[in-house]
Amino acid sequence: MSGLSIKEILKNSEHVNQEVIIKGWVRSKRDSKAGFSFLAVYDGSCFDPIQVVTPNELQNYDDILKLTTGCAVEIKGKLITSPAKGQEYEVQANEVSIVGWVENPESYPLAKTRQSIEFLREVAHLRPRSNLIGAVARVRNCISQSIHQFFNQEGFLWVASPLITSSDAEGAGEMFKVSTLDFQNIPKTADNKVDYDKDFFGQESYLTVSGQLNAEAYACALSKVYTFGPTFRAENSNTSRHLAEFWMVEPEMAFADLSDVTLLAEKMLKHVFQNVLNECKDDMLFFEKRVNNEVIQRLEKFLKSEFITVDYTDAIEILENANKTFEFPVSWGIDLSSEHERYLAEEHFDSPVVVVNYPKDIKAFYMRLNDDGKTVAAMDVLAPGIGEIMGGAQREERLELLDKRMESVGIEKEHMDWYRDLRKYGTVPHAGWGLGLERLVSYVTGVSNIRDVIPFPRAPRSAKF
Amino acid sequence: MSGLSIKEILKNSEHVNQEVIIKGWVRSKRDSKAGFSFLAVYDGSCFDPIQVVTPNELQNYDDILKLTTGCAVEIKGKLITSPAKGQEYEVQANEVSIVGWVENPESYPLAKTRQSIEFLREVAHLRPRSNLIGAVARVRNCISQSIHQFFNQEGFLWVASPLITSSDAEGAGEMFKVSTLDFQNIPKTADNKVDYDKDFFGQESYLTVSGQLNAEAYACALSKVYTFGPTFRAENSNTSRHLAEFWMVEPEMAFADLSDVTLLAEKMLKHVFQNVLNECKDDMLFFEKRVNNEVIQRLEKFLKSEFITVDYTDAIEILENANKTFEFPVSWGIDLSSEHERYLAEEHFDSPVVVVNYPKDIKAFYMRLNDDGKTVAAMDVLAPGIGEIMGGAQREERLELLDKRMESVGIEKEHMDWYRDLRKYGTVPHAGWGLGLERLVSYVTGVSNIRDVIPFPRAPRSAKF
Repeated sequence: MSGLSIKEILKNSEHVNQEVIIKGWVRSKRDSKAGFSFLAVYDGSCFDPIQVVTPNELQNYDDILKLTTGCAVEIKGKLITSPAKGQEYEVQANEVSIVGWVENPESYPLAKTRQSIEFLREVAHLRPRSNLIGAVARVRNCISQSIHQFFNQEGFLWVASPLITSSDAEGAGEMFKVSTLDFQNIPKTADNKVDYDKDFFGQESYLTVSGQLNAEAYACALSKVYTFGPTFRAENSNTSRHLAEFWMVEPEMAFADLSDVTLLAEKMLKHVFQNVLNECKDDMLFFEKRVNNEVIQRLEKFLKSEFITVDYTDAIEILENANKTFEFPVSWGIDLSSEHERYLAEEHFDSPVVVVNYPKDIKAFYMRLNDDGKTVAAMDVLAPGIGEIMGGAQREERLELLDKRMESVGIEKEHMDWYRDLRKYGTVPHAGWGLGLERLVSYVTGVSNIRDVIPFPRAPRSAKF
Repeated sequence: MSGLSIKEILKNSEHVNQEVIIKGWVRSKRDSKAGFSFLAVYDGSCFDPIQVVTPNELQNYDDILKLTTGCAVEIKGKLITSPAKGQEYEVQANEVSIVGWVENPESYPLAKTRQSIEFLREVAHLRPRSNLIGAVARVRNCISQSIHQFFNQEGFLWVASPLITSSDAEGAGEMFKVSTLDFQNIPKTADNKVDYDKDFFGQESYLTVSGQLNAEAYACALSKVYTFGPTFRAENSNTSRHLAEFWMVEPEMAFADLSDVTLLAEKMLKHVFQNVLNECKDDMLFFEKRVNNEVIQRLEKFLKSEFITVDYTDAIEILENANKTFEFPVSWGIDLSSEHERYLAEEHFDSPVVVVNYPKDIKAFYMRLNDDGKTVAAMDVLAPGIGEIMGGAQREERLELLDKRMESVGIEKEHMDWYRDLRKYGTVPHAGWGLGLERLVSYVTGVSNIRDVIPFPRAPRSAKF
């Protein structure tokens, strides 16, 4: 008799008629006139609470009657097959220890079982106690574990790309500065510029927007690597799709072209989705019931479908010929917006779609120029129900072309010397993509605001907890 | 015949006498007068390169003769049992495609096989191509994968703790500020203070020093969680043991005390070490031969030993009675320094040691006060050969005592309201620890400078790449 989790207890029947110990929190309580109380006890290990029957003979039955939602309890009792509907097992308690009370139950923010998702966001430290955010946490964990498992099996090495960086090479502009300077008295040089020499790193430093360039250095040595870590955007966007801090997965493969990493993307997504359906069934049923009734079905459909690859130029033609008015007009050269992406994946192809070979002018400097001289070997994976879920590219491995491209977008060579070295010494075709973990969790769970799928979201004017 | 990694090809004999494709980089080349060249080709999948025999009948043999260390090649050929000593298999090449030359081979920083570790640090973008840093990358990956596997098996959920935070609650002081303010023109309020209201988050914001407090919020809802992510210290220490950015693993368990998390630490370390010995044998043999001849032996010994738990007060007595002069004098109340820790683990106990119940005055405010009123339920795990490898504690779950402690160290209640809520609503005993990933990689590999076990180290005046 040891402290098994509720998941372990409910998983198989070997514990029936055995003594068990349950440690968790009261989800709800119902007192029967027949001299019993029923406690639903939850420990976070799985979606369902376990029902505990507490007879009034228990020595501290008066205290048990005072239990409210959120109280912490430790229960000893016997697991039996439940005579009641809606559950397979229940526990007949011999002993109920009250570990932690909820003082002033009426002030407990999670006292009500159903709170609005907006309210829960205000109490991010307590919201994992809710059904919704608890389920998100389990699915997010399952997705993350599956990603590591997948890459490990496929022979990729996890590489820690640096978070603090002195290179703003992508020219994103929207970067956070990292500093130990005294803001009250910023040190200045003789010509009244900020004296970064006095800062911790001796130069202007930022939080990274991507680990890709660093991952390239490792792929060009060890062949298959991936990053899985936080990245940052100081974008002043208060939308349901943007976070200032989010987690990215960025595989990078040497001796690989665009089609190799497209295959990799398909294989990984299917591995992840299959795992979620297998391991988080109860959580997914909850999302289906309460959040979006398509979440299970669309994953099952995704698993059966094969990715359709379409050239950007052809995609534009499809959109131009669509019997539909788009908010943003379509013509060759535009970046696809969400409505275009969803039209392609949902209405036109009804399948995951990979759009490849985008115009070079709308893509980053490091993408490989195609032979047509006007497109680059870039790809976006579009999924029905969400639109873009990954973006990637084959990288420009030819030094002269890379230099030309950097020049034309105004990136100074000397800033990128180390990146250019990768092309000077044993250069190889290589490619990779980036996946925003939160977008993926949002897609899988149907929880549409990205702030609800990361424990403590960071956004403009919001860095609490 | 597809692109298998060298690891897959060498792993078992099923590929012998089959056609294989090898994609990788030339480690070294030797030309035989008998009309052959021998290429050692490496792809990062395992420590060993594979020997490729290229006969002079090959159409581009003149080019092959020009190959130098670092050139990228793709080879088609037959895998055969090697007649030569020192290797089991070799490839008889039918075709050698040269994918990427090394231009000006004499300028290639990695041309020589053995470079000093200090020199390699200067070329962090190329150093994964060296034997040493390649081996570190594989072992680091194995350790990280093993940590995720372990916690997943044990029912812990991986939780992303936020990196950007507005709470400097640990009072560490040594934090990086995160900002989008214009340093050239810092906005000021009417009374000439920095106007943080104009900053991205509307308040002073930092990079986190620990995910623990956030992990506690999740443990107090979902029972067993862990973080695995970067943390930061703006400490101006240029030592071999400090980094400004490093990765931490922080499990947190509800309904757990100090001994529960000590057991967890022992179990996890043994799981990780066993995996490394099983999966990275060649890399470990290399470290044993070139870096530290004890690395394998000490892991094997660790696996056989049981953790010895010793009270801080007893540890002090042991040190006071030691027949040894310490640089830092010993008396009750001091924090143990490295020489003390190593004396305990290496000389006195000759075993991993867990020191518990430290004086409260040298420990953080959130640690649980023991009944003696002067010590707290803190623990440090000390390993022979390195000293402290983990630090942890049972957390103060009693609100009155937490408040008292915060008051005495000058932390304002209102700043910690959310943390206090965890004690107001269904509080439970809980505990956890923190493990610095880089310290662990350093211990396992014997690579003593922590800057060599993270791909792109960040330290004072150093944020390159």
